[in-house]
Amino acid sequence: MEFKVVGKDKETAARTGLLRLPHGEVETPCFMAVGTQATVKAMTPEELTAAGAQMILANTYHLGLRPGIEIVAAAGGLHRFMGWEGPILTDSGGYQVFSLCDLRKIEPEGVTFRDHLEGSTHFLSPAESVRIQQALGADIIMAFDDCPPYPSDHDSACKSLELTLQWARTCRDSHRDGNQTLFGIVQGSVWRDLRRRSIEELEQIGFSGYGIGGLSVGEPRQLMYETAEYTASLLPENKPRYLMGSGTPEEILVQVGFGIDMFDCTVPTRYARNGTVFTPGGKMVVRNGVYRADFRPLVEGCACYACRRFTRAYIRHLFNTREILGARLATTHNLFFYFDLMKRAREAIAAGSFAEYQRAFLDRWRGSGCESEGSAHTLPEE
Amino acid sequence: MEFKVVGKDKETAARTGLLRLPHGEVETPCFMAVGTQATVKAMTPEELTAAGAQMILANTYHLGLRPGIEIVAAAGGLHRFMGWEGPILTDSGGYQVFSLCDLRKIEPEGVTFRDHLEGSTHFLSPAESVRIQQALGADIIMAFDDCPPYPSDHDSACKSLELTLQWARTCRDSHRDGNQTLFGIVQGSVWRDLRRRSIEELEQIGFSGYGIGGLSVGEPRQLMYETAEYTASLLPENKPRYLMGSGTPEEILVQVGFGIDMFDCTVPTRYARNGTVFTPGGKMVVRNGVYRADFRPLVEGCACYACRRFTRAYIRHLFNTREILGARLATTHNLFFYFDLMKRAREAIAAGSFAEYQRAFLDRWRGSGCESEGSAHTLPEE
Repeated sequence: MEFKVVGKDKETAARTGLLRLPHGEVETPCFMAVGTQATVKAMTPEELTAAGAQMILANTYHLGLRPGIEIVAAAGGLHRFMGWEGPILTDSGGYQVFSLCDLRKIEPEGVTFRDHLEGSTHFLSPAESVRIQQALGADIIMAFDDCPPYPSDHDSACKSLELTLQWARTCRDSHRDGNQTLFGIVQGSVWRDLRRRSIEELEQIGFSGYGIGGLSVGEPRQLMYETAEYTASLLPENKPRYLMGSGTPEEILVQVGFGIDMFDCTVPTRYARNGTVFTPGGKMVVRNGVYRADFRPLVEGCACYACRRFTRAYIRHLFNTREILGARLATTHNLFFYFDLMKRAREAIAAGSFAEYQRAFLDRWRGSGCESEGSAHTLPEE
Repeated sequence: MEFKVVGKDKETAARTGLLRLPHGEVETPCFMAVGTQATVKAMTPEELTAAGAQMILANTYHLGLRPGIEIVAAAGGLHRFMGWEGPILTDSGGYQVFSLCDLRKIEPEGVTFRDHLEGSTHFLSPAESVRIQQALGADIIMAFDDCPPYPSDHDSACKSLELTLQWARTCRDSHRDGNQTLFGIVQGSVWRDLRRRSIEELEQIGFSGYGIGGLSVGEPRQLMYETAEYTASLLPENKPRYLMGSGTPEEILVQVGFGIDMFDCTVPTRYARNGTVFTPGGKMVVRNGVYRADFRPLVEGCACYACRRFTRAYIRHLFNTREILGARLATTHNLFFYFDLMKRAREAIAAGSFAEYQRAFLDRWRGSGCESEGSAHTLPEE
């Protein structure tokens, strides 16, 4: 992997960069569509590319359960299995064990847990997570970490961090494949001294990039912003910074301003399947009856396939009748919206007008009142 | 509409033809994909075209309930509403009232029924069915008919036929739009004298084409074949013959040999969504575990998108994890399989080798034992 910072904004910490990976180049800041089970829900690889996807994310935990790592390995790896030829990032399974599983028993050696499907008992260790991710063959893999819940007092967050750092060392030592890049994950809940210590120790271990974990787990949005901004400010300038599991369009655009380079979130795809699409003026619940005779596209002037070809009335009808095409069109639009948001952010950073772009976007978005709930979403799993 | 018979087989009654319609030309024999609710389930219009679709079918009954005819009309008609630019055929609603609704009260003026969604009471008459179909704007519309169940004794079938003939006259008289073609529907259950009388009277009323109704409603397959063959043999040579709601690949290829020109059925799309795909050797339940590490395409050498890009193992994984892409890929394959079956049949008829092609296909298909149940399917609705 190679990463270089290409441009920096003057008013904010936003920056553009270029990530060279075995399966292609990625311009940052970028949004990775989530392909939990080796498919970005409802989309083909070609449609992802057409919508603007550069890199996607897949989940070690889910793929380990179904179809099983040996199947993906026998297929020739995740790229071949799912027919996606661009870069892939896999997460380590740590977050899924934290968020989806019962009866977790966390020990220095790893985690024993019951899976969310059949309730069978499994054991996952840092070395095993790396081994699995190597078998999957993603371009970027993540260290196995412990994700403390929100709230966590300083003492528990500190203990959790110790474990994450110990596991980070094991992951680093277990990692072999020269074609794959291993990222460390910064933890420490919302405690600044722990975030700082986390970064210092991870830098000593030595990683090619850093995930910011432990956010979007139920904390107030403002606290997420403060923690992400503080954490990003301490991370080394020349390495990519990946804010894990965040967020809405508003959250992403704010945090691009903190100097975050990579994002992933299930929001665009999950909202889409529930009949909610994104517009510059905020969320639109297109399945609502108010759109039954509205023959405009989802967003006037939007260049996505759904907006070029179909009306709100038709897409509303598809949701009303539970037709698969409804989920497809809404997903296509929402992903296009996200990729376009990132593209415009990159262009604005390059043109020296990011702060202005960010302000204009947020004013229009917030004017709709659609993100007034004020806390980071807590269910990033699909 | 123009229809001309282009070629005739010597050994069977099979024939090729060309149907010129306002939205395009259709080569016959053809299979129409079913787009019950103004969408062929899981597919975009472009994907339908890529799979080989020429003409699709939509349902008056369903569209009348959701989104409502006034919405489709306000959109500029069904073509514009759903973004399908090729020919469309709509059925009259008669069959859906028969197969989906409770508390039918059939009177000479029309049918009072409760819909299958909310149980509200509706009244549908022949004139109203024509009016609705004109508002939808399909290229071919169907007369409103009464579909007797199987079995029906001669007396009930005869009374039902009287009603269908009376309604056919009303439909003919109500039909105005010069761009649309109205087909009559032959009924008469499995009674030869009634089928004959039905055709004679419909010809007197005068239609540009004929549907063969009342089959695939639970009768033994052999009886369906005999009735379809007999009926087709009495229909005028120079008008298109449309066997409504049939059938499996075997049933279609057999009945092409009777001189049927048009088919529609939910089998390829419905089977696909349940994880069953068609192969020259019969049905394959690709969601089964036996395919978990099978890295061949669904059908070796198949040119469909699913087979060119993905493996059985991946598609099986998609069904196992209930991913939308699984239904999409299986639907794409099954529709391609059907359209390809028709294309090869047309080519064989043109080349004078249809009987040979039919025999080879049926031998291989029946060798698998996969259609041994011996009765026509009874649930053609999606």
